[in-house]
Amino acid sequence: MKKHNFSAGPCILPQSVLQKASEAVTNFNGLDLSLVEISHRSKDFVDVMENARELVLEHLNLQNQGYKALFLHGGASLEFLMVAYNLLEKKAAYLNTGTWADKSIKEAKLFGEIDIVGSSKDANFNYIPKNYTIPSDVDYFHCTSNNTIFGTQMQEFPETNVPLVCDMSSDIFSRVLDFSKFDLIYAGAQKNMGPSGTTLVIVKEDILGKVSRTIPSMLDYQTHISKDSMFNTPAVFPIYVSMLTLEWLKENGGISEIEKINNAKAKLLYTEIDRNPLFNGFVANAEDRSKMNATFSLANDSLKDTFDASWKAAGINGLNGHRSVGGYRASMYNALPLESVQVLVDVMQDLEKKS
Amino acid sequence: MKKHNFSAGPCILPQSVLQKASEAVTNFNGLDLSLVEISHRSKDFVDVMENARELVLEHLNLQNQGYKALFLHGGASLEFLMVAYNLLEKKAAYLNTGTWADKSIKEAKLFGEIDIVGSSKDANFNYIPKNYTIPSDVDYFHCTSNNTIFGTQMQEFPETNVPLVCDMSSDIFSRVLDFSKFDLIYAGAQKNMGPSGTTLVIVKEDILGKVSRTIPSMLDYQTHISKDSMFNTPAVFPIYVSMLTLEWLKENGGISEIEKINNAKAKLLYTEIDRNPLFNGFVANAEDRSKMNATFSLANDSLKDTFDASWKAAGINGLNGHRSVGGYRASMYNALPLESVQVLVDVMQDLEKKS
Repeated sequence: MKKHNFSAGPCILPQSVLQKASEAVTNFNGLDLSLVEISHRSKDFVDVMENARELVLEHLNLQNQGYKALFLHGGASLEFLMVAYNLLEKKAAYLNTGTWADKSIKEAKLFGEIDIVGSSKDANFNYIPKNYTIPSDVDYFHCTSNNTIFGTQMQEFPETNVPLVCDMSSDIFSRVLDFSKFDLIYAGAQKNMGPSGTTLVIVKEDILGKVSRTIPSMLDYQTHISKDSMFNTPAVFPIYVSMLTLEWLKENGGISEIEKINNAKAKLLYTEIDRNPLFNGFVANAEDRSKMNATFSLANDSLKDTFDASWKAAGINGLNGHRSVGGYRASMYNALPLESVQVLVDVMQDLEKKS
Repeated sequence: MKKHNFSAGPCILPQSVLQKASEAVTNFNGLDLSLVEISHRSKDFVDVMENARELVLEHLNLQNQGYKALFLHGGASLEFLMVAYNLLEKKAAYLNTGTWADKSIKEAKLFGEIDIVGSSKDANFNYIPKNYTIPSDVDYFHCTSNNTIFGTQMQEFPETNVPLVCDMSSDIFSRVLDFSKFDLIYAGAQKNMGPSGTTLVIVKEDILGKVSRTIPSMLDYQTHISKDSMFNTPAVFPIYVSMLTLEWLKENGGISEIEKINNAKAKLLYTEIDRNPLFNGFVANAEDRSKMNATFSLANDSLKDTFDASWKAAGINGLNGHRSVGGYRASMYNALPLESVQVLVDVMQDLEKKS
């Protein structure tokens, strides 16, 4: 049966991408060799890396503006550390909107003073703090654009004169933004870009080289820039699949087109959550709702077994909420078709009729 | 045409492993979902991770002796840093046997005093230093078991009372050793274990927790041990393929059986290098020769075009030497069949007949 994959990440990727990736594991580019058994210095793989880096800047409209795109190791969790290692001299401002923001703050505290300018920890992160002030004397401001666990998403980003750093792990390539407002963007691949195992970093070069500490080679963005993202052996397969996904996005009209579909998916599901008396949304304010991850719960827990059996029978996968929130989480990343959301909405409506 | 893949890494993997990996990219475990689009917290993937970790300890005969096997991000290059971050309080001893050892020394110097107890840098690393003394007051001794670029390999490891740390990136699982002599072993996956994108660390827990500095979460081995190697999203595909390769090794009799084949391959090639007047081995002493990577050059450079055309016509891939050494490098990792080495030897003998 065709699955409707609402997994929060690693998550659904386009079927055509998975098909090509599968073929490359046995025979890449007609070489009669697997993608994963050739040198990363071979022209075949260098082309993959360069194409992927170029597609990133093209999608984000950041070409020829001093930005470099890197595919690094370590996941966003290593970026929590690298951001501070590379940019934090004395003090930085952080917005605390959830588990991942909290972890980024913890790592940054090892390197300087952290000013938490806004936090929604008081309400289990069910809203996005607003009307906060970013001090002018901080080295940078860090925020998380989308909070996968809680289902909140920043719709606006602050105007500030300090470097703007953003963890976009779970919503990059999903909506049009003025990405040139940001000085450093990072994202684990495993949502809208590819499989786990590589991390995208887009950095404006002129913010680097300003801290006084010595940065270990592997943690220094300048190392990776100087080696065209090939300082050490890159994660070949995750980067190749990311390249394929970025190509798929381009063939499908780019971010502006996928955003329309993402808006339609989110509207369909949130309309049902609001309409159907059996369900409650988790997020306090409608304007803070994530278009990637919708968090909701049953108004009456006694319906849990029936509901769970129904969505599983409909071929839905990955709908359980994160343990920090409970209930359900429907992740609607770029590769999830509108039809899958309709299947979920049908199951929710069926539950209402049966109750 | 069937390729004879002598690539230095990423390198040849067993065909049966690549076939299974290819299938898992479209349909894993009969789930009708790709391996790379399911949650890493799902039972299906947790089983992969646990099986891989267990197989590592089983192959190395390190079960129930206080060791933990971890699959981390970052490659051996990040381990250069993590080893020092976790173990270096004041001083450490390093053996410098090549480019990677040199890089590990560079990173460690950020954290304490480094005593280079032996080095073959004076002769472009064409031998393994011996008769060195490891001071008793160092925090650990670090060495590189096999030097991919230069084609040397340590045949004996020092007896010492300080923790023994070894970068086994390019020869782990290729030969029987008393692995319990080592306190920390690390290896990038992309030689005998799997595709690039994951790094194996085997650490004896009792050597940890002894430095006074605060270690960032992602760089702290204790973080990863406490989370069963799942602190953050692991590199799902590289770890799955590593598991398949470790299973393949077990089905083929384990390290002791593969070592016999590795010995036969090395004997076949080195015998020809020594016999054939057209070729010179790079390594100074026969006892230091690597059974994984054989480095050699043509005695007469005017034969280069003919030789290159011949091995390419025979379906051989990846024979060019590293730029630091020049000439040729035949990497004979576990998955390379004896037949491929025979094809190379035939090409070398043909060249002699034609000259």
